[in-house]
Amino acid sequence: MTKVPTSHFDAKATLGDVGQWDLLKIILQFTTPVSRSPLASMDDIMHLPIVTDTAGKQLFLKIDTFVQSTDMPPQMSHYQVGKKAVTAVISDLGAKGIRPAGIGASLCLPRGLLANNAVAIVHGIADACQHYDCGYFGGDLNEGLEIVITPVAVGMADAKKVPGRGGARPGDVLCVSDRLGRTAAGLEILLKGNDCPPNVREILKNAVFAPETPLEQGVAFVEHNFATAAIDSSDGIAFSIGQLATESKRGVEVAVDALPIAPEVAEYAPETVHQVELALYGGEEYCYLWTIPKNMLAPAKILCKEHKWQLFEIGTITQGSEIVLKDKRGESSPLRTSGFTHFAGDAPSS
Amino acid sequence: MTKVPTSHFDAKATLGDVGQWDLLKIILQFTTPVSRSPLASMDDIMHLPIVTDTAGKQLFLKIDTFVQSTDMPPQMSHYQVGKKAVTAVISDLGAKGIRPAGIGASLCLPRGLLANNAVAIVHGIADACQHYDCGYFGGDLNEGLEIVITPVAVGMADAKKVPGRGGARPGDVLCVSDRLGRTAAGLEILLKGNDCPPNVREILKNAVFAPETPLEQGVAFVEHNFATAAIDSSDGIAFSIGQLATESKRGVEVAVDALPIAPEVAEYAPETVHQVELALYGGEEYCYLWTIPKNMLAPAKILCKEHKWQLFEIGTITQGSEIVLKDKRGESSPLRTSGFTHFAGDAPSS
Repeated sequence: MTKVPTSHFDAKATLGDVGQWDLLKIILQFTTPVSRSPLASMDDIMHLPIVTDTAGKQLFLKIDTFVQSTDMPPQMSHYQVGKKAVTAVISDLGAKGIRPAGIGASLCLPRGLLANNAVAIVHGIADACQHYDCGYFGGDLNEGLEIVITPVAVGMADAKKVPGRGGARPGDVLCVSDRLGRTAAGLEILLKGNDCPPNVREILKNAVFAPETPLEQGVAFVEHNFATAAIDSSDGIAFSIGQLATESKRGVEVAVDALPIAPEVAEYAPETVHQVELALYGGEEYCYLWTIPKNMLAPAKILCKEHKWQLFEIGTITQGSEIVLKDKRGESSPLRTSGFTHFAGDAPSS
Repeated sequence: MTKVPTSHFDAKATLGDVGQWDLLKIILQFTTPVSRSPLASMDDIMHLPIVTDTAGKQLFLKIDTFVQSTDMPPQMSHYQVGKKAVTAVISDLGAKGIRPAGIGASLCLPRGLLANNAVAIVHGIADACQHYDCGYFGGDLNEGLEIVITPVAVGMADAKKVPGRGGARPGDVLCVSDRLGRTAAGLEILLKGNDCPPNVREILKNAVFAPETPLEQGVAFVEHNFATAAIDSSDGIAFSIGQLATESKRGVEVAVDALPIAPEVAEYAPETVHQVELALYGGEEYCYLWTIPKNMLAPAKILCKEHKWQLFEIGTITQGSEIVLKDKRGESSPLRTSGFTHFAGDAPSS
């Protein structure tokens, strides 16, 4: 093993210059390929087929980091930080129908942090684990300049049933598990100090502070083979739509009228254009996006009614490769599929 | 799930005031107990018995974070950062005889980092995985104020064979897998700018920059049931000795003369007292400490000779509870078992 200097970019280029996506492409070249995995290379959960249990299920793993400077609005409590960090990793597994068996978390904390706030983070982690009925098995404790919480979630699943991002087929119906836009509206209120009607203010802020993810619905949908492809909406629903379309090598037609704008969002943002923007480009919502074959839609709806789960049809997978937004008059315009992206680079348009 | 404020410490106390150990005790109260686990509650790997494979092996997991401000001397390359971060998690599994099946890593990087340095980190991660014959299955990418690398390693093992920290019995021989002190000497040279004979300078610096861990030896020792207890030396060998003694509820007698001071350390630090200090209290060495029953020592030595592995006897487990250092004249003095500790708090004396 020799110490090889690795030059892939211009010598002076920073991550701010090259952006998240070009770096990710390089990183993928260094990772171990997994053959016959349902997950596309760009998928954000890991599949370790080398671990197979007595029921033939294989190991899936999700690791994600909550960073104070990037992810924690000043008004957010430390308890909420712990819960949200866990919710984020469970969301990625849940969208694929994988029930988390356990959570570990590496905590990196600054020396000046109030000790009770450190405990509050751990309390939040433990409560989130309890909420999703999953063990909290420990982790590690380190010191750093800012709060950095890295939970890892593991779950076992039948790899043949796990829907990736690439399975959508023409005619499949695009569905989401919740009304949209609350988190994006909440972030505008919190970070830009935007005005908001008092009656919806708490709900919108809470969407940022205390998100939940519909794990049981995700597990049930995969168990029943409802979904041909699945992803969570943590980078914004438009981005997720773009991922499903690109990886499935298909087009998508989304009906503007069908977008389930949350009523609180409509109250906060009276203009339709603003509402649609919030619904499509808000990240951290942790709801699920599925493509469901038409004949599976009826049983999916029955199951949702039975469990009081939400389900909204927002579009259709098409033969082509275009991703379009169709307005009320039937006119189509291209849907921008960029989502939240680190290092100020742009997401690849799909 | 209600949002409970969590007060365990004085309202104004920071982590710098309370220290790592008091916080860890509270964290443990929030984690899920694992019954019939070989690992003590304070152990730094996780045991998830809910995942059992076809051979009856269970899932073990290690997550640990490499933080720029705490763990990266200015002279260290980004490639070395990636490799060392992986070595650290593999070391914890290896000490318990668990072969890592796969690695994932969450990368948290500042926007201003040179893009090629980000790639070098990933290159280091991939090379370390290859070195230890373990897949690199991806992870996650985030933005933050400093470089924070969180690898997670998973491995399957027969839980009945995994040695914890609490299995040492009176008469067992305390052994280490390598000569000691190089890392501590290297850190003094790097961080304090201490003088060093030129002929050993690179070796001592390299112990900090490019440590390795004797994974194969660790796996073989557990496979052959050589060890009643095991731990890696990443927090310093004295700390590890304290952990084995405390968790085993036994005493330890360490012979000063038997400490295998690395020859480069002897050259750097001519005074015996300084050498012993470097050998006992240097962290990040990633060698293993085992307690081996007397009748197992001969076969262990034969195996080591066969594979050119190192093995040094440094002491004995005693009936009592005292942890002592025995000098050449046969006189005993208490061994201070504190190791590296975050937040400036002190490790509990064992």
